[in-house]
Amino acid sequence: MLTYNFEIIKGPVYEYLYQCIKNDILSGNLKPGEKLPSKRAFARNNGISTITIQNAYDQLASEGYIYTVERKGYFVSSLNILHEKKTVSRHVSISEEPQYKYDFSYNKMNTENFPFSIWARLTRKVLSEKKDDLMKISPTGGLLELREAIAMHLQSFRGMTVDPNQIIVGSGTEYLYGVLVQLLGRDKSYAIENPGYKKLIDIYGQYDVSLKYISLNQEGVDMESLQNSHAQIAHISPNHHFPTGIITSVSRRYQLLSWANEEDGRYILEDDYDSEFRYNGKPLPTLFSMDGCEKVIYMNTFSKSLTPTIRISYMVLPSHLANKMYKEYSFKSCTVSNFEQCILAEFISQGYFEKHINRMRLYYIRKRKEVMNCLSDSSIKDDCEIIESNAGLHFMLSLNTLVSDKEMKERLAEKGIKINTLSDYYMTKKQVRQHLFIMDYSNIQMDKLSEAFDIMYQCIQP
Amino acid sequence: MLTYNFEIIKGPVYEYLYQCIKNDILSGNLKPGEKLPSKRAFARNNGISTITIQNAYDQLASEGYIYTVERKGYFVSSLNILHEKKTVSRHVSISEEPQYKYDFSYNKMNTENFPFSIWARLTRKVLSEKKDDLMKISPTGGLLELREAIAMHLQSFRGMTVDPNQIIVGSGTEYLYGVLVQLLGRDKSYAIENPGYKKLIDIYGQYDVSLKYISLNQEGVDMESLQNSHAQIAHISPNHHFPTGIITSVSRRYQLLSWANEEDGRYILEDDYDSEFRYNGKPLPTLFSMDGCEKVIYMNTFSKSLTPTIRISYMVLPSHLANKMYKEYSFKSCTVSNFEQCILAEFISQGYFEKHINRMRLYYIRKRKEVMNCLSDSSIKDDCEIIESNAGLHFMLSLNTLVSDKEMKERLAEKGIKINTLSDYYMTKKQVRQHLFIMDYSNIQMDKLSEAFDIMYQCIQP
Repeated sequence: MLTYNFEIIKGPVYEYLYQCIKNDILSGNLKPGEKLPSKRAFARNNGISTITIQNAYDQLASEGYIYTVERKGYFVSSLNILHEKKTVSRHVSISEEPQYKYDFSYNKMNTENFPFSIWARLTRKVLSEKKDDLMKISPTGGLLELREAIAMHLQSFRGMTVDPNQIIVGSGTEYLYGVLVQLLGRDKSYAIENPGYKKLIDIYGQYDVSLKYISLNQEGVDMESLQNSHAQIAHISPNHHFPTGIITSVSRRYQLLSWANEEDGRYILEDDYDSEFRYNGKPLPTLFSMDGCEKVIYMNTFSKSLTPTIRISYMVLPSHLANKMYKEYSFKSCTVSNFEQCILAEFISQGYFEKHINRMRLYYIRKRKEVMNCLSDSSIKDDCEIIESNAGLHFMLSLNTLVSDKEMKERLAEKGIKINTLSDYYMTKKQVRQHLFIMDYSNIQMDKLSEAFDIMYQCIQP
Repeated sequence: MLTYNFEIIKGPVYEYLYQCIKNDILSGNLKPGEKLPSKRAFARNNGISTITIQNAYDQLASEGYIYTVERKGYFVSSLNILHEKKTVSRHVSISEEPQYKYDFSYNKMNTENFPFSIWARLTRKVLSEKKDDLMKISPTGGLLELREAIAMHLQSFRGMTVDPNQIIVGSGTEYLYGVLVQLLGRDKSYAIENPGYKKLIDIYGQYDVSLKYISLNQEGVDMESLQNSHAQIAHISPNHHFPTGIITSVSRRYQLLSWANEEDGRYILEDDYDSEFRYNGKPLPTLFSMDGCEKVIYMNTFSKSLTPTIRISYMVLPSHLANKMYKEYSFKSCTVSNFEQCILAEFISQGYFEKHINRMRLYYIRKRKEVMNCLSDSSIKDDCEIIESNAGLHFMLSLNTLVSDKEMKERLAEKGIKINTLSDYYMTKKQVRQHLFIMDYSNIQMDKLSEAFDIMYQCIQP
């Protein structure tokens, strides 16, 4: 008969009993097939109630340690304990980016620029007034309320007329690229700009799609390069190419639309990632709004305009693709939380987004000007040329130096400056232009800037 | 010489001029190659400043409508307007789920159960105290703060010891399944339980992986079926199978671990989706914590425990897979907003999550009891049997009827009842068990319940 010491226990008695028997089974004191004492005898023997024993036996049975045979009682299961726990090194290392004193490579929203107080107010409102919406599963494309707000914004800001049902909201453009690859097909060939946003190689790479690189000229994507690539999907940023700042001309836009219409299955993915930050004149009309043949997929994000850490992007699909999305992929849940969808919808529809963009635009224009002024006062001024596109949160700086980009970056890193060069953005090693530095000033403190330029000046010497 | 009426304009003069010239180009009044008037002559002629004209010309040039030839002036570009805008039907239809009076199929958090006031308080705190964290890009796996809180929760709630760096946070389990397929390989063969969570067919289907179905018996996954499937990855829910409620026995657990260790490249994906809601005794130890050989990937979600609309799930990777993730996929941004990561981290680490789970568990136990009571008072009581597993937010009801499941569902739908049957969860049409109804009572109002049972009683008559 099993006997355990019931005087020392703290928690529920049945749990203690369960643990004791389990240990005896695991250690082999109780052998497979061995019969456990009857509840009544066990209870009498140990001075505890039969209900306690029933509970412990039930728990053991539900976990499979013991089994019951009708009218015979409980028996120990045969456990195939086939391996002892080995000690496996569980060390996981996440390499952290080194911190730089001056970081021209990093796009981050400064805390003083994010509209925290309005956001807090809208959150409070949403949490108290929209409880029901917050708990209702949103459709694949996102909450109608947010899609309507985005449609309204696109109308007033980009002159685009879209049905809210064409809009698909997702947690970041990377995620949406993946959805698009599913929608358009992994058998298609995708073309990206060279130089361009290099992360796209990784992003498309994970779906094993055929990837082509297309070169650029002053008017935008080089049409011959695009034709020769035999790609079906052209992923481009016609409104402000990253990082060169090239703006695709109107005639090139029509050539692109013409290209898309030459063959079935061709599409243009128009990445309009920083359209909010064009400083002079009216923003260009989007390819999407010039398109009359359902060949353009428009994509934009709140990463640049609000903060990258909020993970909300969207795409506008031609209606036949939107219908396909809802027909074939409606099982996909929207990846953005209802909470933030509701808050953002309020933020846009109450006009705060427009105000925020205007404020940020002025802020960046002022900052850009200060950077330029600081540059023209610096020792490096005679050895550099600014390549301007009047848009975005960066410009290119051409440095008069014989030092290679690689060497230059190492020298700068040693002195605490992180900066990318145009050569970093080439997909291939052919015809790489050197000595062009991408100055993202969104994350630079002004009081450190002249020091940074002084360091750059020291580093360009051979 | 171009002349435009400058008296009627409202906005900036340059913009008006830009629009006029653009219209003339697009309409063909200005022909490709035609020279535009010199700035000086144009200014004199129209009584406006040369700067205004410069601005308009710059804008037109930047958009490609005109081009400049050094020392010669501005010329109209040749636009390849190859197609007129066709009218394309832009109608996108999103089919909406019909509304039911009694919905036993839908898992939704009731607004009175979500901890709105605590959530609002923590949001306020995070927005005022964590501004810097909110703006900092989080690593691929999510904010350390949240991963630490989850690790702590797993330790105290599931007895699992995990390094926070093994945890990958993502916007929903569906998204994480996709990450896993990338990590483990699309060339692998995946096995899912049959019957089981049918959406997995769609989810795995989109990655074109080979998918096998494995049958179950009372102890859990049928080992012979798993062996015969030749699958490498077994995606299972050992702690509470959906929808049958089967709990995998300890000996079967060891058999599963043994299976995983028989060949390189085999893994078990342990889906622990509703572990928080086991009502009797201690929750079973997870396969992950029984595993000593890095063969188990653990996955859980806040969908059941908080609300499906918050879109936060996580997986715990064996360390070698976590290292692979950070080595090969660190370009992937975490898909959950920092804002909600921070709030959830506070919610867990301040103990609110545990309190919430306890409160919800009591709520569901009470509701379950009420449902059972209502059932035993109803006219259907003698024609049904409850199949209980003491866990989750649903149970199975076996109905004594000759009416087929399909017919039964149609009859019920007509009277406003939506309910799923076990037969809905079979992946194949072989050996489908009929007359078993899945009663998810999380979304049912108690005062309507007896009426629903009456209707069911009417419907089971031949």
